[in-house]
Amino acid sequence: MTVIEEMGLRAKNAAKILRTADPEMKTKALNMMADDLSKHQNEILSANAEDLREAESNGMAKAMMDRLLLTPERIEGMASALRDVAAWPDPVGKIQEDYTRPNGLRIKKISIPLGVIGIIFESRPNVTSDCAGLCIRAGNCVILRGGHEAFRSNNAITEIMRSALAGAGLPEDCVQLVKDLSHESAHELMCLSDYIDVLIPRGSSRLINRVLDESKVPVIQTGAGNCHVYIDKDADPEMAVSITVNAKTDRPSVCNAAETLLVHKDIAEEVLPKIADALTDRNVELRCDEHAHSILADAGLCSGSKQALIKDASEADWATEYDDLIMAVRIVPSLDAAVDHIDKWSTHHSEAIVTENAESAEKFLAEVDSSAVYWNASTRFTDGGEMGLGAEIGISTQKLHARGPMGVDQLVTYKFSLTGNGQVR
Amino acid sequence: MTVIEEMGLRAKNAAKILRTADPEMKTKALNMMADDLSKHQNEILSANAEDLREAESNGMAKAMMDRLLLTPERIEGMASALRDVAAWPDPVGKIQEDYTRPNGLRIKKISIPLGVIGIIFESRPNVTSDCAGLCIRAGNCVILRGGHEAFRSNNAITEIMRSALAGAGLPEDCVQLVKDLSHESAHELMCLSDYIDVLIPRGSSRLINRVLDESKVPVIQTGAGNCHVYIDKDADPEMAVSITVNAKTDRPSVCNAAETLLVHKDIAEEVLPKIADALTDRNVELRCDEHAHSILADAGLCSGSKQALIKDASEADWATEYDDLIMAVRIVPSLDAAVDHIDKWSTHHSEAIVTENAESAEKFLAEVDSSAVYWNASTRFTDGGEMGLGAEIGISTQKLHARGPMGVDQLVTYKFSLTGNGQVR
Repeated sequence: MTVIEEMGLRAKNAAKILRTADPEMKTKALNMMADDLSKHQNEILSANAEDLREAESNGMAKAMMDRLLLTPERIEGMASALRDVAAWPDPVGKIQEDYTRPNGLRIKKISIPLGVIGIIFESRPNVTSDCAGLCIRAGNCVILRGGHEAFRSNNAITEIMRSALAGAGLPEDCVQLVKDLSHESAHELMCLSDYIDVLIPRGSSRLINRVLDESKVPVIQTGAGNCHVYIDKDADPEMAVSITVNAKTDRPSVCNAAETLLVHKDIAEEVLPKIADALTDRNVELRCDEHAHSILADAGLCSGSKQALIKDASEADWATEYDDLIMAVRIVPSLDAAVDHIDKWSTHHSEAIVTENAESAEKFLAEVDSSAVYWNASTRFTDGGEMGLGAEIGISTQKLHARGPMGVDQLVTYKFSLTGNGQVR
Repeated sequence: MTVIEEMGLRAKNAAKILRTADPEMKTKALNMMADDLSKHQNEILSANAEDLREAESNGMAKAMMDRLLLTPERIEGMASALRDVAAWPDPVGKIQEDYTRPNGLRIKKISIPLGVIGIIFESRPNVTSDCAGLCIRAGNCVILRGGHEAFRSNNAITEIMRSALAGAGLPEDCVQLVKDLSHESAHELMCLSDYIDVLIPRGSSRLINRVLDESKVPVIQTGAGNCHVYIDKDADPEMAVSITVNAKTDRPSVCNAAETLLVHKDIAEEVLPKIADALTDRNVELRCDEHAHSILADAGLCSGSKQALIKDASEADWATEYDDLIMAVRIVPSLDAAVDHIDKWSTHHSEAIVTENAESAEKFLAEVDSSAVYWNASTRFTDGGEMGLGAEIGISTQKLHARGPMGVDQLVTYKFSLTGNGQVR
C-alpha cells in the first residue's frame, strides 16, 4: 500500500465513525479546533514565517506573499470561521421524506455525509481550516493537499486541528494533509476512487482543468467565473454605471467579478461613455468591439489621458476570465443576442441584467443557464455568506449535485432506509 | 466540426428551447410520442426483425435474442411507459426556496433541467424510448448511443419520436441517436463537455468502467449491484429463508438481486441449512466459506443430489456480482463484522438485515453506507416503480447528485435567481 492509499484507508475508517457521530460531539470538536488555533497561534506564525522566508528567497511576487502571510488577526479569523461552522445546524440525519408504500414498506429518505472529500488547493493557508470545518460539520473526513509554498503553515494548522479532534473524542484522521507534494502523489489522489467520494479542486483554472482531466474520482468543478453584466435598452443609466463598476472593480481577482460588459445598441451611445468613464477612472482597461470603440471615440475617450486604456477586443477576450482590471465590451443588437453571447462564452457562474423592464428581466432570468442570474444587482453577491448559506467550500459551476455557493448543507447526500415485516417481491 | 460535435451543438440549441418550454407542451409531445410508437408499430417491428436476423446469423445467444426481441405487446409497453411519464408532475420551475436578504436582495432557488444528457447503453431497445421520455419530462435533451445489435430498432424508435416532437412544436433534436457506433465516436461523446452536461452509462460493469475511465463529462455511475443479505442472530428463521430466496432468485440478472449471504454464527446452524435447502431447490450454487461449508456438510447437504451446488468460496467471490443463480455465503462473528464485510465489498447499492432486534436493525441501517438499506425486506425493492419514484433512468451507486433509483425528479438541478434594485457590494 502506498502512503496515499494508506491515507485513503485511514480516512475511510475515520469516516465510518464520523458519519454516525453525535452532532454535539462535532460541535465540540469544531469549537476545540477554533480554541486550539488561537492557543497555538505562535506555532502557526513561526511555521508561516519559515514559509515566507523561503518564498521570499524564491522571489515570490508581493501579492502572492500577502496571500501566504498569516497574522494574529488572520488566525483569529480562521478560529472565528470554525466557530461559525460549529454553530451551523447539523445537516446530517435529516428525514427528507417518510412514506409508506401500499405493501406496508416504510421508506425514509435521510441526509447522510458524502464520506471522504479530497481538496486540492493552492491558495491561502486559511483554506486548510475553512475546508476542514465545513467538512466535519457535515460529517465528512477530508484529505487536504495544499501548495508547496504554504506547506509548513498548512501542516502546523492541520496538526493542531488533529489533536483537537482527538481531544474531542473523534478520530484525528478526520483531517489529513498530504505531505508528499509530488506530481505523482497528486495523480494518485485523483485516482483513489476506492476511498475518496468527491474531489474539489480550488485554485487556478489550470489546476481545475488538470483535476478534471486526470481524476477518476467524481469532481465538483468550482470557481471558473467568466461573468457578464448586460445593460438592457431599458436600463437606468445610473444603476448601469454603479453595478458595472462594482461587479468589475470591487475585487477583480475573485470569481464573481464581471469580465464582459454587454450593452444594448439602443442605449449604448447614452450609457457606455458614462460606464467607460467611471471604469477608466478606476484604471480599468477596456477591450472593445468595433461598435463600442467607435462610440467611445465619438465620446472623446479615445484621446487624452484615458486613451491607453481603450483597446480592441479579439474573440479570445470573450472567453477570458481576466481576474484583473480589464473588461471586454461588446454592443449587442438585442436581449436575445446578449443571451446567446452569454450562452456561448460564459462559464455559467453569475450574470446580471440591468433593466427597468420586467418582461426583459424575466426573460433573461429564465433563459440564462447560469448558477446565479441577477436582475439589477451586482454579480458580486454570488457568495455563501452574502446569500445566507454560511461559509462556502467553493462555488460550483457544474450541474451535478450542487450549483453556486456550496456550504455545509451541500456537503451531504442521502440514502433510503426501508423497514418492512418480511416483504418480498 | 465532427459529426458528434454537430450532434452536441444541435442538442445544446434544442436544450435552450426545451428548458423554458411550457409543461403542457412537453406533456403533449410525450403523449404524441406514445401514440406514434403504437401507430408505427410495423415499422419498428420490421426494423427489429432485421436486427434479429443479423443477430441470429452472428450466433447471438438465445437469452440475448430475447432481450433484443420486440413484439406488439412490448411496443405497447413502451408507449404506456411514455404516457406514465407524460402524466408525471413536471419537475422544472419549482421554487425550492424564496427569501429576502437584509439588503433587500430577493433570492429564489429554482429547479431547472440538467441540460443535455448523454446515455450510453447496450441493453434492450425499449431503453431508447424510456430514457427519452424521462429526459424530456424533466426538460432535458438526450443523445442516445445504443448497441450495434439493436441499431435498426433504436433508429426506427428514435425517428418516430423525433417526428412526434416536431409535430408537438418542439425541436426534433431533443432526441438524437448516434449512428456511428465506432469506438472513436464513443470516446468523442465522452469528451464532449462543451455540450453534454451529464453522461449516464447503462449496461455491463465493463461498459460503466470504460465510461468512468474515459469520460471528461460528469458521469452518474449506475447499476453495479453487489448486494448483501445479513441474517442476524435474532432473525426470524422463516423470514430469513423467504427474504434470501426472493433477493437471490426472483430475478437474478438485475442489479438489486443479492449476491452474498452473511449469517451470524449464533444462528447459522439453525438457519443456514434451511436457507441453503431452499436456494438449492431453486438450483442456486452456493460458494461457502469454510465455516458455512462445514455447517452444510453437518446438515447433510454436501452429499446426495445437492452436493454439486455446494462449493468453496475464494476472496474473489466477495467482490463478484454474479447476476446469476450463484450466491456467496459467509458466517460472521457479529453484526459489526457483517457491517465491515459490506463496507469492504459492497458496491453500496442495496443491503438488508433480517432481525427481530430493533437495536441491531437501527445500527445496521445507520452504519451501512449504501443507497438503500433494508430491515426485514428483500433488496429487490430498490426500483423507481416499487419505491414510488416513477420510472427510473438508472440506479445511482455514487454519492454525488442522486443515490438509488433516479426518476424524473432526479434529472433536474437548480439555479439561483436574484432580484434587486441596484444592490452593490
